[in-house]
Amino acid sequence: MPHEFHTQRRIEFADTDMAGIVHFARFFIFMETAEHEFLRSLGTSVAAKLDNMQLGWPRLAASCEYLSPAKFEEVLDIRVVVARKGNKSMTYHFEFRRGEVIIARGQMSSVCCIVGAEGKLKSISIPDFLAAQIQEAPPSE
Amino acid sequence: MPHEFHTQRRIEFADTDMAGIVHFARFFIFMETAEHEFLRSLGTSVAAKLDNMQLGWPRLAASCEYLSPAKFEEVLDIRVVVARKGNKSMTYHFEFRRGEVIIARGQMSSVCCIVGAEGKLKSISIPDFLAAQIQEAPPSE
Amino acid sequence: MPHEFHTQRRIEFADTDMAGIVHFARFFIFMETAEHEFLRSLGTSVAAKLDNMQLGWPRLAASCEYLSPAKFEEVLDIRVVVARKGNKSMTYHFEFRRGEVIIARGQMSSVCCIVGAEGKLKSISIPDFLAAQIQEAPPSE
Amino acid sequence: MPHEFHTQRRIEFADTDMAGIVHFARFFIFMETAEHEFLRSLGTSVAAKLDNMQLGWPRLAASCEYLSPAKFEEVLDIRVVVARKGNKSMTYHFEFRRGEVIIARGQMSSVCCIVGAEGKLKSISIPDFLAAQIQEAPPSE
Repeated sequence: MPHEFHTQRRIEFADTDMAGIVHFARFFIFMETAEHEFLRSLGTSVAAKLDNMQLGWPRLAASCEYLSPAKFEEVLDIRVVVARKGNKSMTYHFEFRRGEVIIARGQMSSVCCIVGAEGKLKSISIPDFLAAQIQEAPPSE
Repeated sequence: MPHEFHTQRRIEFADTDMAGIVHFARFFIFMETAEHEFLRSLGTSVAAKLDNMQLGWPRLAASCEYLSPAKFEEVLDIRVVVARKGNKSMTYHFEFRRGEVIIARGQMSSVCCIVGAEGKLKSISIPDFLAAQIQEAPPSE
Repeated sequence: MPHEFHTQRRIEFADTDMAGIVHFARFFIFMETAEHEFLRSLGTSVAAKLDNMQLGWPRLAASCEYLSPAKFEEVLDIRVVVARKGNKSMTYHFEFRRGEVIIARGQMSSVCCIVGAEGKLKSISIPDFLAAQIQEAPPSE
Repeated sequence: MPHEFHTQRRIEFADTDMAGIVHFARFFIFMETAEHEFLRSLGTSVAAKLDNMQLGWPRLAASCEYLSPAKFEEVLDIRVVVARKGNKSMTYHFEFRRGEVIIARGQMSSVCCIVGAEGKLKSISIPDFLAAQIQEAPPSE
């Protein structure tokens, strides 16, 4: 069972701002997309269904520390770690590198929900088909 | 000297995602724009110059907690608080409300820099013309 | 009955790219938001309901010509003109100015739809409550 | 010499809006990134230098027709065609497909510029190293 996932992403022109570097808010999109790639690598999706009901994962919290700027056309290595697998929520850690240089470190927590009529959200225990596939990383990670 | 600033923002269609609510990464844009409005209210700008040199404020860290979703066309009240005025860096706290409902709470820290040739950044003490105008909020805030 | 609407928008930091100007794709967001402000000024919304059914306005086409760059913190004047009010579709023209300088001209066409189950879209005639409030601009506009 | 380029792109969560489909403005980002991939495939970059001067390609015009919606996690095939190679400007056509379904068709025109001090732009003839590598598509394309 995996507790870690690696992917890459090339910086696009629209990721940059007038300071000539990646806009800080873009890293949250990068984290989210890496999280979704991880779920797809397990054969599932952040938008999976459970007994015909739509699942959703609204954010509880998100944060990022910026250590070094990233620029247009650079390719970042992204490491996703399952920091905590709770009963209803997941916390991922992320690290962005360009070669040996650490660009940013972030984390995101989300809660597993059923999406009802009118978009109403109700939190539920993470379904077995998903919980069975994801392992919490050892504390040292 | 102000240590607090209030503004509002109406949710745009492009702020939403397929879950029908504001995408979590948008709150970082909302925080940044509120920070810049605060600086303009003081008669300055995040892109001010110092002795003909361009100032910049790259992010050190940013975080947000999500308490209740926000939807299209809602108007959010945004409160900006100067949580810490350091020698070279600033930390702002943000609170997003819709009426009495707290939508989100966030914070951002940035470091004052001179932008040199090729976008090279060098951290400096916050210039007097700016430092003299901003007050750190009392600890209770 | 109005066939024209005026609004303003200040350029945000996240609207810019590494060329130091507003990224060209942002003008489509600016147009959309101006369109939605126009509808709100008429007492309705792009997300209005009709007999308890959700209305939507998917895009048929969008275009923009760029005449002069726009920069951070500038305030653009935006003029919205109802270029064509069809039976099922609307075409708006947009002009962006900074003082006397024309920054960009664009247009967008959308079709009026009922949003059904699973997001299925079905085009309908523009409801009377809306059609009755909007006038097509004279050809000279 | 190529006059055509093919790439793919998977729809991200942040590409969607509350209508449950890709927001129309995102297609302009998709076009831009496909254009830049094409240039990289030729061994160059939209941000190349000429005699130590920075090149830039500000947009003259951009447009898109929307034929069928695209959804989260779908993979779109993107075809880039060099519709016109002028002395100073380039026009690209784009087609987005999901299998046999045409999702959208767009085009973008840009002018080749030298970026001077303070971001001042001066149009120039497309440099030989680039012009020599790109072929205009036959009229039938």
